[in-house]
Amino acid sequence: MSKDPIALNDALASFDARWSPRVVTRVNDYDVRVAKAEGEHVWHVHEDTDEFFLVVDGELHISLREPAGERTVVLRPGSVFTVPRGTEHKPSAPKGASIMLFEPTGTSSVGDRHDEVPAHLDATTGHELGT
Amino acid sequence: MSKDPIALNDALASFDARWSPRVVTRVNDYDVRVAKAEGEHVWHVHEDTDEFFLVVDGELHISLREPAGERTVVLRPGSVFTVPRGTEHKPSAPKGASIMLFEPTGTSSVGDRHDEVPAHLDATTGHELGT
Repeated sequence: MSKDPIALNDALASFDARWSPRVVTRVNDYDVRVAKAEGEHVWHVHEDTDEFFLVVDGELHISLREPAGERTVVLRPGSVFTVPRGTEHKPSAPKGASIMLFEPTGTSSVGDRHDEVPAHLDATTGHELGT
Repeated sequence: MSKDPIALNDALASFDARWSPRVVTRVNDYDVRVAKAEGEHVWHVHEDTDEFFLVVDGELHISLREPAGERTVVLRPGSVFTVPRGTEHKPSAPKGASIMLFEPTGTSSVGDRHDEVPAHLDATTGHELGT
């Protein structure tokens, strides 16, 4: 855990990879991760955990498959949204976005079940900042 | 849990009270809270949980009593910091700040041990947004 505050923009400037979260800090057994988003992620589900999104920059779309049907929410900078556990979802960012995530340490970026993971996605539980 | 994204600025505009956190959303058994800060909070400690701060607007100071002595970290907009469990700390915002917090549901704003709580502080586990 860093002894000093971290500017999210500095953390985001330290890497280029899209859809490849970095762990900025931890809160008990949760990670605070940042990621760059561009294009489409993959439909996936976290069976046992909610997932929190905050948009730092750009615009993030999150498509959701809910009992009532499919819909897409749009988050602009400074907006937050929690995807409930068990809800299939697919983030996308047609024009790119920078995001911050809260989720339990060890949570996979592609969930417990997912469509085939395309090459541009990193299936990871989060990389340490600076790696 | 809101079915739609929430703009932190809208959430913050919905109340005026200083040092009186509102719960914006939940992530499993954790709260995402927003608060307005101005002046001094009180020295307190959360024995059993880390506490995460993100500054949305303004400047937040967090004084820390660590084994090596006392120091103060300064967070500007877009900066994050986690106060480790068991560390006495005192937030302050001489010129005001808006912040977002991440901590377990039920965590008291004045911790498990604290100095006398001045009248301008709200000792709370967080209010629902819109109340």
